[in-house]
Amino acid sequence: MADSAFKLVSSNRMFGGLMALYSHYSSVLKCTMEFRVFHPPTSTESPAPASTPVLYYLSGLTCTSENFATKGYAQAAAAKAGLALICPDTSPRGVDLPGEDESYDFGSGAGFYLNATRDPWSQHYRMYDYVVDELPGVLKANFPELAVGSKEAIFGHSMGGHGALVLALSNPGRYASASAFAPICNPINCPWGVKAFTGYLGDDDKTAWEAYDASVLARSYAGPKIDVLVDQGTDDQFLKEHQLLPETLAAAAAANDQLDVELRMQDGYDHSYYFIATFVEDHIAFHAKYLL
Amino acid sequence: MADSAFKLVSSNRMFGGLMALYSHYSSVLKCTMEFRVFHPPTSTESPAPASTPVLYYLSGLTCTSENFATKGYAQAAAAKAGLALICPDTSPRGVDLPGEDESYDFGSGAGFYLNATRDPWSQHYRMYDYVVDELPGVLKANFPELAVGSKEAIFGHSMGGHGALVLALSNPGRYASASAFAPICNPINCPWGVKAFTGYLGDDDKTAWEAYDASVLARSYAGPKIDVLVDQGTDDQFLKEHQLLPETLAAAAAANDQLDVELRMQDGYDHSYYFIATFVEDHIAFHAKYLL
Repeated sequence: MADSAFKLVSSNRMFGGLMALYSHYSSVLKCTMEFRVFHPPTSTESPAPASTPVLYYLSGLTCTSENFATKGYAQAAAAKAGLALICPDTSPRGVDLPGEDESYDFGSGAGFYLNATRDPWSQHYRMYDYVVDELPGVLKANFPELAVGSKEAIFGHSMGGHGALVLALSNPGRYASASAFAPICNPINCPWGVKAFTGYLGDDDKTAWEAYDASVLARSYAGPKIDVLVDQGTDDQFLKEHQLLPETLAAAAAANDQLDVELRMQDGYDHSYYFIATFVEDHIAFHAKYLL
Repeated sequence: MADSAFKLVSSNRMFGGLMALYSHYSSVLKCTMEFRVFHPPTSTESPAPASTPVLYYLSGLTCTSENFATKGYAQAAAAKAGLALICPDTSPRGVDLPGEDESYDFGSGAGFYLNATRDPWSQHYRMYDYVVDELPGVLKANFPELAVGSKEAIFGHSMGGHGALVLALSNPGRYASASAFAPICNPINCPWGVKAFTGYLGDDDKTAWEAYDASVLARSYAGPKIDVLVDQGTDDQFLKEHQLLPETLAAAAAANDQLDVELRMQDGYDHSYYFIATFVEDHIAFHAKYLL
């Protein structure tokens, strides 16, 4: 297969480190995928220290690995803290399933970080396994300086905030901390989630949806204690349209001693990357507490 | 005229201030133009203090007012320093001149911050007058809190770095300081500049080109002493292709006591916004010294 090999597509020096774009063939998703890594300055030294902590960032609907790299404003803080940022794409690409590109909130750019069980999506749309297992394997094989499997944390935005919360809560002990900007907190009860879960999982057995619902998981989470930071703008149109439901997550977490969710309502902020840029330094500092 | 009125198109809260997009009809350019303003937190208080310093940012080839707003990473530092950032577009828009959209380095997105004298470009392509006179007038009329005309500085990238240097050097005393990322320093001697100046100014009288050449202006500048900061990546493809020629500017400035140009060669950096993001905080701090 011509493009099956892991390869560096491009890299740009930034804040003393490297912002790099890679591609590889994903055997889980059965397509070629791209992802970006910000390598902090210490990790690009030769010989590199053996344990650069890893912070995954999961993007939202319509995004690729590029949005956070260009508009996230996270690299200065990551460089200072010595964290690597890992930015996967948001869905399989170019697999040509019927209807894949018809809507912004289903199919391409809208993988929802789950393993689809309904045909034809189940053949490719397995972003949960990709982010939890396959991508870390690729990182481990290619970047021995990264502390994959030992010092990892996760955050994300909107659909990616949902992904970060679900991955952290369903893999107890795996991620040292989790945070999110304007996450979809209760997808089984919002229009985006109902559409996606119906399409990817079917609606015969809705209890299967609960495995991918942060609020359900927050109620039953019984792993090692984990701290979660959530920032939510008060002027976010999707908050007003009841797509995000952060209060449901906060209520579920309040009843669970193993989970400490700090929900910060940010006055006047919206759903955009301008909002993320404003608070990303706080999130990097939050994760650094647990990773360093 | 339906869209002649100055208006707010959109705004996003960011770092306690506002990142806003405006449109207005430009009588200099004879078309509707957009520009962006980052209003720092102090300037959005009510009543706003009367003298928020103004820092103009001029973008490079193919850019609009958006690039720096989303990818420039400048707002955190501008918010802290209390500076307003003003981001104009890079050319007239939608004026339908023949050939306007045929190349990335001439016409739309490539106004070169000059007043064209050659038909048909002279009818619209007058970005020098737009940035020096008309836009400040629009700002003054709509934002009384901005210190337009009293505390102004200017910077830019590539073609916009050329613009910032030329505007500062040809308007002695107007801008408190000037800086640039990878500027086109000697356009009369590089392919981009020769193409643009031939098209906009004609090649009958090449001495007319010198009014828009930072290196020529740096030799003869006799205004109040001005400090200039230039960052240039060593791995910049356009440096290697002799489009930028920073050494010519440095040599001209070295022979002129009224001008202090600090040229910093940044190892391994390229021409991208990743480079700008890395050093923009230095530039904000540089201008703040002269503006505050």
